[in-house]
Amino acid sequence: VRNIKLTISYDGTAYAGWQSQKNARGVQHVIEAALKKITGRAAKLKASGRTDAGVHARRQTANFRTVSGLALARLVTALNSEIPDDILVTRAEEASLGFDSQKCAKSKRYRYTVSTARFTDPFLRHFVARFSYELDINSMRRAASALAGRHDFSAFRASGSKEGRSIRTIKRIKIVKNGSLVYIDISADGFLYNMARTICGTLLEIGRGRLPETRTAEILKTKDRRLAGPTAPAKGLCLMDVVY
Amino acid sequence: VRNIKLTISYDGTAYAGWQSQKNARGVQHVIEAALKKITGRAAKLKASGRTDAGVHARRQTANFRTVSGLALARLVTALNSEIPDDILVTRAEEASLGFDSQKCAKSKRYRYTVSTARFTDPFLRHFVARFSYELDINSMRRAASALAGRHDFSAFRASGSKEGRSIRTIKRIKIVKNGSLVYIDISADGFLYNMARTICGTLLEIGRGRLPETRTAEILKTKDRRLAGPTAPAKGLCLMDVVY
Repeated sequence: VRNIKLTISYDGTAYAGWQSQKNARGVQHVIEAALKKITGRAAKLKASGRTDAGVHARRQTANFRTVSGLALARLVTALNSEIPDDILVTRAEEASLGFDSQKCAKSKRYRYTVSTARFTDPFLRHFVARFSYELDINSMRRAASALAGRHDFSAFRASGSKEGRSIRTIKRIKIVKNGSLVYIDISADGFLYNMARTICGTLLEIGRGRLPETRTAEILKTKDRRLAGPTAPAKGLCLMDVVY
Repeated sequence: VRNIKLTISYDGTAYAGWQSQKNARGVQHVIEAALKKITGRAAKLKASGRTDAGVHARRQTANFRTVSGLALARLVTALNSEIPDDILVTRAEEASLGFDSQKCAKSKRYRYTVSTARFTDPFLRHFVARFSYELDINSMRRAASALAGRHDFSAFRASGSKEGRSIRTIKRIKIVKNGSLVYIDISADGFLYNMARTICGTLLEIGRGRLPETRTAEILKTKDRRLAGPTAPAKGLCLMDVVY
């Protein structure tokens, strides 16, 4: 039996997210169906983490076990010929049998992209969220710096979700302005459900001046979800990289 | 009466081109319908030139006459609120009554983007044409340089189309390689129907080594369409700018 690690890029616009939902298919399902067709057997694809509906990925990783002897290069070609062109398998590698895309991930990086322009560039409409306010980038940077490090991020996860431990380590938050676009890059050892989008929603409210710069530290201290900003729209979020 | 010049950006994927066709609407129709709704009167929008189905524009220009007294900034906002988000009016300006987007254009620049990778980046799939061959860029540049200047480009227009004069001046052709992407930028005082795509199709065949470098000069000399390469796919083409 082999354990194969795939690197996958996708435009999430048309999908229910990584996982299928009741009435909409997920990226996982599309690739699993192709794997079954190619190898003749059902395979279970496990990703570094789920992405929500409308969230994109540049380098998502996922692994599956198979008894197929298909060469890696042929597997990549066969998969890409089978799946629609908004998903691309960029690489396939042999992994040790113990490799698990989620558990073995050391860190993941998400990028959130905001357009502060009045209207959105048609070429970016599926990949940026519009937030038409002047943003104080330095204020956002100071607020972000309070989030770096090991903290209980329970107040930044989707309200209602209570599963599991909520301690995570943010290794870096970087905010870059490029014309009317603002990028928020967050690297962490893991992300709670909706954590990246809630952090971005909070930093944007701070940048706009509707929440104080000190709010991020206050949220970490009080663990009060109600103090955080709204969950930023999915389409601005992209999983950029997973490090092992 | 006012003559208003619009600058327009569009993702052409979903459109029949600038002009509507029998069963599919064009960008022109969408904006004209919005103008009618906003100003209360039908307006005829005249572009710098038509773009084909699937061709994109960063800065197309078009003008229309109106008796409406609506302020330019409000017109832009109203238009963008009315039209779908794959079209964006980026600017509106007062033009002299004699201004004609097509006749007054001094030069237009088209960019053709090719991906030489085996599979196309999902984020670029509507905006690049796949041409998975190793390209000799220097050979393409030499072949392109023969096209610069004032020539009869009749052999580079769509076969069958015979209307009008076919003398045009190419002011510049620039070919740039960036990783697996190749950009072909062509500036000219005007383009015959399909001229940009036929030039690109020919240069790509030369880059791949299936046509000789000397072919471009030969085509100009013989005016024989059969010596040129195929018309490159629409989705790789984008109208970048119109200069007045």
